[in-house]
Amino acid sequence: MDLGTILGVVVGLGLVLFGIIAAGVPLMVYVDIPSVLIVLGGSFGAMMVGNPLSRMLGIMGIFSHVLNVPNRQEGKIINDLIAFSERARREGLLALEDNLDEVEDEFMRKGLQLVVDGIDPEIIKAVLYTELNEMQARHATGAKLFDDWSKIAPAFGMIGTLIGLIAMLKNLSAGDSSAIGQGMATALITTLYGSLFANLFLIPIKNKLEDRDREESMVREIMIEGILSIQAGDNPRVLLEKLLSFLPPAEREAVRQEAGRE
Amino acid sequence: MDLGTILGVVVGLGLVLFGIIAAGVPLMVYVDIPSVLIVLGGSFGAMMVGNPLSRMLGIMGIFSHVLNVPNRQEGKIINDLIAFSERARREGLLALEDNLDEVEDEFMRKGLQLVVDGIDPEIIKAVLYTELNEMQARHATGAKLFDDWSKIAPAFGMIGTLIGLIAMLKNLSAGDSSAIGQGMATALITTLYGSLFANLFLIPIKNKLEDRDREESMVREIMIEGILSIQAGDNPRVLLEKLLSFLPPAEREAVRQEAGRE
Amino acid sequence: MDLGTILGVVVGLGLVLFGIIAAGVPLMVYVDIPSVLIVLGGSFGAMMVGNPLSRMLGIMGIFSHVLNVPNRQEGKIINDLIAFSERARREGLLALEDNLDEVEDEFMRKGLQLVVDGIDPEIIKAVLYTELNEMQARHATGAKLFDDWSKIAPAFGMIGTLIGLIAMLKNLSAGDSSAIGQGMATALITTLYGSLFANLFLIPIKNKLEDRDREESMVREIMIEGILSIQAGDNPRVLLEKLLSFLPPAEREAVRQEAGRE
Amino acid sequence: MDLGTILGVVVGLGLVLFGIIAAGVPLMVYVDIPSVLIVLGGSFGAMMVGNPLSRMLGIMGIFSHVLNVPNRQEGKIINDLIAFSERARREGLLALEDNLDEVEDEFMRKGLQLVVDGIDPEIIKAVLYTELNEMQARHATGAKLFDDWSKIAPAFGMIGTLIGLIAMLKNLSAGDSSAIGQGMATALITTLYGSLFANLFLIPIKNKLEDRDREESMVREIMIEGILSIQAGDNPRVLLEKLLSFLPPAEREAVRQEAGRE
Amino acid sequence: MDLGTILGVVVGLGLVLFGIIAAGVPLMVYVDIPSVLIVLGGSFGAMMVGNPLSRMLGIMGIFSHVLNVPNRQEGKIINDLIAFSERARREGLLALEDNLDEVEDEFMRKGLQLVVDGIDPEIIKAVLYTELNEMQARHATGAKLFDDWSKIAPAFGMIGTLIGLIAMLKNLSAGDSSAIGQGMATALITTLYGSLFANLFLIPIKNKLEDRDREESMVREIMIEGILSIQAGDNPRVLLEKLLSFLPPAEREAVRQEAGRE
Repeated sequence: MDLGTILGVVVGLGLVLFGIIAAGVPLMVYVDIPSVLIVLGGSFGAMMVGNPLSRMLGIMGIFSHVLNVPNRQEGKIINDLIAFSERARREGLLALEDNLDEVEDEFMRKGLQLVVDGIDPEIIKAVLYTELNEMQARHATGAKLFDDWSKIAPAFGMIGTLIGLIAMLKNLSAGDSSAIGQGMATALITTLYGSLFANLFLIPIKNKLEDRDREESMVREIMIEGILSIQAGDNPRVLLEKLLSFLPPAEREAVRQEAGRE
Repeated sequence: MDLGTILGVVVGLGLVLFGIIAAGVPLMVYVDIPSVLIVLGGSFGAMMVGNPLSRMLGIMGIFSHVLNVPNRQEGKIINDLIAFSERARREGLLALEDNLDEVEDEFMRKGLQLVVDGIDPEIIKAVLYTELNEMQARHATGAKLFDDWSKIAPAFGMIGTLIGLIAMLKNLSAGDSSAIGQGMATALITTLYGSLFANLFLIPIKNKLEDRDREESMVREIMIEGILSIQAGDNPRVLLEKLLSFLPPAEREAVRQEAGRE
Repeated sequence: MDLGTILGVVVGLGLVLFGIIAAGVPLMVYVDIPSVLIVLGGSFGAMMVGNPLSRMLGIMGIFSHVLNVPNRQEGKIINDLIAFSERARREGLLALEDNLDEVEDEFMRKGLQLVVDGIDPEIIKAVLYTELNEMQARHATGAKLFDDWSKIAPAFGMIGTLIGLIAMLKNLSAGDSSAIGQGMATALITTLYGSLFANLFLIPIKNKLEDRDREESMVREIMIEGILSIQAGDNPRVLLEKLLSFLPPAEREAVRQEAGRE
Repeated sequence: MDLGTILGVVVGLGLVLFGIIAAGVPLMVYVDIPSVLIVLGGSFGAMMVGNPLSRMLGIMGIFSHVLNVPNRQEGKIINDLIAFSERARREGLLALEDNLDEVEDEFMRKGLQLVVDGIDPEIIKAVLYTELNEMQARHATGAKLFDDWSKIAPAFGMIGTLIGLIAMLKNLSAGDSSAIGQGMATALITTLYGSLFANLFLIPIKNKLEDRDREESMVREIMIEGILSIQAGDNPRVLLEKLLSFLPPAEREAVRQEAGRE
Repeated sequence: MDLGTILGVVVGLGLVLFGIIAAGVPLMVYVDIPSVLIVLGGSFGAMMVGNPLSRMLGIMGIFSHVLNVPNRQEGKIINDLIAFSERARREGLLALEDNLDEVEDEFMRKGLQLVVDGIDPEIIKAVLYTELNEMQARHATGAKLFDDWSKIAPAFGMIGTLIGLIAMLKNLSAGDSSAIGQGMATALITTLYGSLFANLFLIPIKNKLEDRDREESMVREIMIEGILSIQAGDNPRVLLEKLLSFLPPAEREAVRQEAGRE
């Protein structure tokens, strides 16, 4: 469970609620079910027009993906690649087959399998980069979904406000200023919902998805670099240097020592 | 028929209508023919200034293209390519000519024809990528049409509101607040139309067109990869691996088994 | 004469005028010469600060360029290139010199002249692509002019409105609400002008210029491809296939038959 | 002195002043020293936070750079390069040393010196392109300065307006509508200043800087192309064709004749 | 300590305070703790949703990084590289090991170590560029943090204003215009805070971070160029010319003389 995400929503929403209470009107003033329907439902409808049904149904899956903390373990992957590299130098590329089942990551296992199968390096590179690019394209589609929504939700907020304002103005003849205020207040609630929904949920989730993509892409680039170096028979110590360049300087020493111990 | 698109419009528009009814004024208040003409017609006029007539007349064609669910069949295409690859290895490239007529897709047939004709791989690659790039350029022109319109429509919404506001303000001397309200309400309707038209139709359609382009481009990249590999005489099993990299991991197994059965 | 452009202005402006008449105030209310001067003149002044005088004086030339329908004839160009290709194969590259004077397009003539002169293919490619790139850079400068203006014109509309609002507010002590209305109405006219000018003229013209650039660039890319293939002695039938890839599928058959007839 | 820039400011500011006078209130109403300080000074402060002091102090240098009309002389440079090319063909690359002192442009002199010194072409290319890229990076930093400022100045205009509005609203109890008008009018002046400053000065200057960068870059690309061709011993007539491709077609004939005369 | 940054905040904030005092209301009117909490806290919460906790906790580190003036010393680095280059030519690459400990910069030391170790140039290039790219990616993540925040903070400013406005409008029946003014004034304070926070802190800090990245990247590119040239055994004088191309022309002479003295 990603505590930061939960905590962020609690902090952000909590402070907004605090602001409401500090404004000195009952909280219920800010609760309006039709407004929720216009902003969330209307913008969801607009998203359905622009996206295939299957993708809209997959939104929940993306949500849960965001809430799970990814288990980043570049260090372990680098160590595994170094171990494979050393074994390949000692016993030949075919010997790698024995340990293939232990490789958890499907992408890395596939790459190493291609090496064991003796496929041409250019083709392995093409296969792995195609897979990386297509993964990035799928991630980009997911991030774009939330990006688009984060622009359409405030637009439906404004649409709701316009509907409310027009209704209020048409009734202006009724005249008492209290009714005007009530009308405008209700009209503005959709804009508030649209802005909150976009800025506290949709935009941050988009950012998180882009972040995850960067991380996963880096891990896969480390794997590709390692797999191709193993096939080329590069010196494991040089390979370690190469793979460590992907990590921030502060994290390198720990991985280096880990690799040395084995 | 793309049910998602229809459903999206129904949901989006339905919830907006619900919001209007919840606002407690007659629905007819929000219907104003001159406002429709200013927003839709005016922005259509602006689009005509910036685009050739032929493209404007093709808008309906783009619409129907969007409403048809594309029959995505990367799996079948991959299987066909593998079958061609196996036959080419067994019987030579010329043997592919027999099955060319069965190839439904014009792009793939053209590419395979060039292979059968013994054209230089570099030239085949150039021809197929030129065609892919030009297709993407045409798709981009279509998507840009809706993107431009989605910005100009709200602008004409605001222009209509300014026209209404100025008219109302000029008549302010008349003085009764009811008339002011009526004037402002009418003025705001164009902004409402412009925003709804852009956010519920134009932007989602632009997104859908960009989506379709990505899908068609991927299918064609699979074809190019396959055609060039067939010509190069690559191993069909390796080619299968290469082409499967384009698909999301979850869809690969089904295609793999299909390919094995043949 | 580009009928679409004229028709677009007529439709767009006509519907706005219709909206004004429907608003029920005399048309003259929306005519204000000082507002025209602030928005058009002020933004023109800002454009003069940011662009060399020569470019500002060339705006009229760009306008007339936009109003002329370009005579697109990719088909004829492809046929000409195929004819040159066939002749070069039969009679040698030097034989092309006889027909050079018939080539209307200066760019194509220059490229073929370089081929006849026996210049190195790499240099011909460099010369032609430099010329293409510089043409695109010049076109981009023209489109940017209108793009910049389309952002500065509404800004001067807002500046005019601010000037009017401040004047009105300073006179508020005078007090009668009719005067307030008059003041605000006049103040808003500059915003109306800025928005109309940008959305009905400047943005569409920018789009048209970008469109023309894409078309001219494609024609020149066809020429470059053809000229270099002629020099390389490629098979005319293969060259035809290559050049047809630039066209939309629907237009290819006509060109193909034309080429076959010769 | 760049007359267009001066003229543009005169025209733009003049028409705004005309608009003010046409609004019928004394000009002094629009003069407010505190507002100038908030918008210009406040945004200048924000720029100081985001940029090193040395760059902020260099703004005046950029200004004067913008006001000087650059002496574009691609024609002369092309002729000089052709003359060097001819001499190098006749008398060898070492003979170029005699005329090096006549070369005014430091970049071109440096490049030719490297040629005379017999440095490897790949290294000359790397040195000259590094210098070109770094020049473009420095220019981009200058243009970004004005671009950033053009966004921050209107923001401080709005900040000033918010400050004024809040002050006015707090005093609302005082009640007379004349005071409200005065307050709002003063509050809006900062927004007016921010918008004018951005649209009449900052944005156009940014555009001008980008323009100058494009021109200088093109001149240097001509030089690099020429220097490398001289070293490679290319035919001067072919080189002339190559360099003329950088110019607009209309300017080529004059340069060609100039080159022929020598 | 970066005086420009401190001075910028003092100037920017000072002039805003001056504007407040000039507005003639007590300074305390603009101080509202709940508003601070909504804008700063709420937007911080939204940032927490979109970023991992570790990154949010590292914000203070980024701040202090921005406040320290970097000790730019391209000149010294170029001189050191020239000295290494000369020694390598005289005594061989292995002789460089003696002076490696004197190299302060970790990146440069690592690169030279790889040269001493006799690693293949292609691999050294890959290692150093991977490290440069990953550094840029980390810097970009930091700059994006402030960029995202600079958009979300004003959004929470507007959210706070909407909350205040709705509260005020609901109480409109109470009726006295003084209370309305108080309500609106308080409501607008969050927008003021959001805009000030974004324009005086967040956007400038983002700009500063991007600036630092450009500088550090250039220094590293100089190092990579130098290290690879040393390995290739290039002439030190030519290398000096190459490395000086990275500097602005005005700074070159000083470095050149420094290099000559040694």
